Amino acid sequence: DAGILYGIIGREQASDAATLAAMADGAYAGGCDIIQLREKNMPTGEFLRRAQILREKASRWGKLFIVNDRIDIAIAAGADGVHLGAEDLPPEIARQMWPKGIIGVTVRNLAQAQAAVAAGADYVGAGPVFPTTSKRLDAPPLGFAGLQAICDAIDIPVVAIGGLNAGTMNGIRKTGCSGVSVISALFQLRDAKGHPDRGAAAPCRLTA
Amino acid sequence: DAGILYGIIGREQASDAATLAAMADGAYAGGCDIIQLREKNMPTGEFLRRAQILREKASRWGKLFIVNDRIDIAIAAGADGVHLGAEDLPPEIARQMWPKGIIGVTVRNLAQAQAAVAAGADYVGAGPVFPTTSKRLDAPPLGFAGLQAICDAIDIPVVAIGGLNAGTMNGIRKTGCSGVSVISALFQLRDAKGHPDRGAAAPCRLTA
Ligand code: NI
Repeated sequence: DAGILYGIIGREQASDAATLAAMADGAYAGGCDIIQLREKNMPTGEFLRRAQILREKASRWGKLFIVNDRIDIAIAAGADGVHLGAEDLPPEIARQMWPKGIIGVTVRNLAQAQAAVAAGADYVGAGPVFPTTSKRLDAPPLGFAGLQAICDAIDIPVVAIGGLNAGTMNGIRKTGCSGVSVISALFQLRDAKGHPDRGAAAPCRLTA
Repeated sequence: DAGILYGIIGREQASDAATLAAMADGAYAGGCDIIQLREKNMPTGEFLRRAQILREKASRWGKLFIVNDRIDIAIAAGADGVHLGAEDLPPEIARQMWPKGIIGVTVRNLAQAQAAVAAGADYVGAGPVFPTTSKRLDAPPLGFAGLQAICDAIDIPVVAIGGLNAGTMNGIRKTGCSGVSVISALFQLRDAKGHPDRGAAAPCRLTA
């Protein structure tokens, strides 16, 4: 099993439509199975237009596209699903609103993972596994052991997130998780000439 | 016809849940037919909790409750409808997503009003009628004549918004519009002792 490579992108990585489209091509070409669009404090119309770009790219590549937080934008754009964090809609409500959508839930510990399953989540994003600077740390890192406890306890896919890089992939793989989620590793690495390094994703891919 | 009194409330008027609940009671008691909850850059979960408060108040008073911009929150909270501005979801998409919801659309001129009707809007909020400080002015004020042209041209209710006060109500009434929308007049007037003036809405009510 090659594992799921789950990329997260937002305006910090791609501020305009052309960059967003190019990064999506690069990420899917580099092995990404899923791209999540995450935008904070963006007007709904602009968020929707960006989601429509990624919808088209995902369809062209035959890959998945998920919207962070906004189930309205996810449905309007024809996304495959929505990812919900602690400050978003409760997953039970999202499940009622969108029976066929993929619903992912961020979990910080085993109890939250089990609650997500009970709420009807299709997968969980578990983390942070290690300390990260990409968002404020509101829970202690899971570490390999905490991640493994979640993977052992629930039957839906567990995507590891937070502080991951090529050096930690071997340990991540041993936890039994289904995939890894990366922001900086996928979209911010540059090759020697300063161009986006489309091969950067490869080392992060979980290989059996 | 007594006309529709349409109040708009958000965190600038009511920053906490208790104030929000009290203002809703005051507004409905003061003659408000509809309250719209308008929040910018608020986490979805918090926005939903505030919407649930207003849902309960509207039901208790037998009045209507509308959510600005966020159709996901409107549906999740069981609101009566959603109000869409220029930077929100296109009304055609909102109508597809929510066939039974009341869909209101902000319009700045006659062409936009006619487009809103074609898109399936249930009402329009037309304005600003007069200059206002409550949001940036991205279109010239309609004035009485511009408002009347819209009211004459379309068959769905037209709610006048922007720069309205008791002194302009007589002129507004003559345009044939269905109601008035107020933020500051409803929620920011204070009585002589500095308490919210629950009677402030009364002069704004359109009476035949
Ligand atoms: Ni595989």
